[in-house]
Amino acid sequence: MSLPLDDRGLLLGDGLFETLLAREGELILWSAHLDRLTRGCRVLGLPPPDPRAARRACEAAVRDAGLGSQRAAVRLTLTAGSGGRGLDRPAAPSPSMFATAAAMPAPSGALRLVTARVRRNEGSPASRLKSLSYLDNVLARREAAPAEALMLNTAGQIACAAVGNLFWMRRDRLITPALDCGVLDGVMRAQVLEAARVMGLICEEARLGRDALDSASGLFMTNSLVGVRTVSHLDGRAVQPHPVTARLAEAVAAVS
Amino acid sequence: MSLPLDDRGLLLGDGLFETLLAREGELILWSAHLDRLTRGCRVLGLPPPDPRAARRACEAAVRDAGLGSQRAAVRLTLTAGSGGRGLDRPAAPSPSMFATAAAMPAPSGALRLVTARVRRNEGSPASRLKSLSYLDNVLARREAAPAEALMLNTAGQIACAAVGNLFWMRRDRLITPALDCGVLDGVMRAQVLEAARVMGLICEEARLGRDALDSASGLFMTNSLVGVRTVSHLDGRAVQPHPVTARLAEAVAAVS
Repeated sequence: MSLPLDDRGLLLGDGLFETLLAREGELILWSAHLDRLTRGCRVLGLPPPDPRAARRACEAAVRDAGLGSQRAAVRLTLTAGSGGRGLDRPAAPSPSMFATAAAMPAPSGALRLVTARVRRNEGSPASRLKSLSYLDNVLARREAAPAEALMLNTAGQIACAAVGNLFWMRRDRLITPALDCGVLDGVMRAQVLEAARVMGLICEEARLGRDALDSASGLFMTNSLVGVRTVSHLDGRAVQPHPVTARLAEAVAAVS
Repeated sequence: MSLPLDDRGLLLGDGLFETLLAREGELILWSAHLDRLTRGCRVLGLPPPDPRAARRACEAAVRDAGLGSQRAAVRLTLTAGSGGRGLDRPAAPSPSMFATAAAMPAPSGALRLVTARVRRNEGSPASRLKSLSYLDNVLARREAAPAEALMLNTAGQIACAAVGNLFWMRRDRLITPALDCGVLDGVMRAQVLEAARVMGLICEEARLGRDALDSASGLFMTNSLVGVRTVSHLDGRAVQPHPVTARLAEAVAAVS
């Protein structure tokens, strides 16, 4: 399968994607991913995906890759479709959609996080979307590799990791950066916030500078493929653990 | 022609492009475009394009589109090539390159410019590159259409138009935003700066807020396809003309 060379996803990063987990052929948190993709289309001014076609594409990708009895990472991509020269879309854009799947063994071990120089653009709605214009994340990850990248926004506020959202404990509160810091509206982020509220934790969506992490404990990253993953080191310094991390990982284990 | 679905340009906006003018089959300012693409590859950590293959692709695109005796817009696209799942490139990325061409009649008339809410990310090197992650520009243009979009950076400084660089006169100086404002390093921008210096104008690469344009005269936009193009209105208000605009347009007429 291939895409024509005039596809706007390819030429301009004009489109969106979802990354989700499949376990034994079941698409985990499918509705949440479809909802986010649909909201993203609204922000970009694209027609929403057909829910049944989107689901079928993901299921077929898992099946075709022979991963129906395994843990798989599914990627659903929606581009703005073919278009003429320049930035303007055709009057009636006709999006293209496709899905792929790859084996995704359960992750193990803690992460090391390194602060990247590349900043997130809190001044664009695209920073809250899983868009095909993902180069800033690619560059941040390249800087930090083999560690994961911590990304600040242009105002120096903590935003997220290049591949997930961040949470930590400050005194008795669970903190995560507010979406307007230029943060992807993560499906697992929402799951963790909900689980934390059920557990009776006070949650704070905050706008904080990098130094707020110096005194943080229990730092962890979330995304749909890894669930909750402990961060052991930040910029070379050990992060103090906190029992809440394991409790939250357990709380979302059914969907990660 | 088409590209495989695992191309990183398509999936992550991981790649670069050039837009250049061809007149009667001649690629205008070819060396400058090739240089910029090569510098961009260095920033992204990609192997540079083969100069002869790049040129041949552009020339063939013009010929194949039957535009060898006309004015044509050529787009040369270089992607990071196929890659596995996730943000990391393969150990030895193998870029894909292709070119397309479209008729490009000489532009006429002045532009209207409207300030977009979408900001440019001065905190990423990608903002100085013509990268495949161009969604912010697409969104800014959508906001402003049918006018062109004026983009500020996240600090509120004047950066550029969604499709070109900006210049204006302040007293007797020619002003253009500094590259570190999150500005594409435009090939025509460099041509205009050079022409202005030859004309004895004092040029200033500046970091200025939006209000600096309220008292500007002779505002114009530049890119490789339109050369110098006068801006007649900014956010609905008429811009005071300045004779320098026409003189600079004349000075770069041979390459636009």
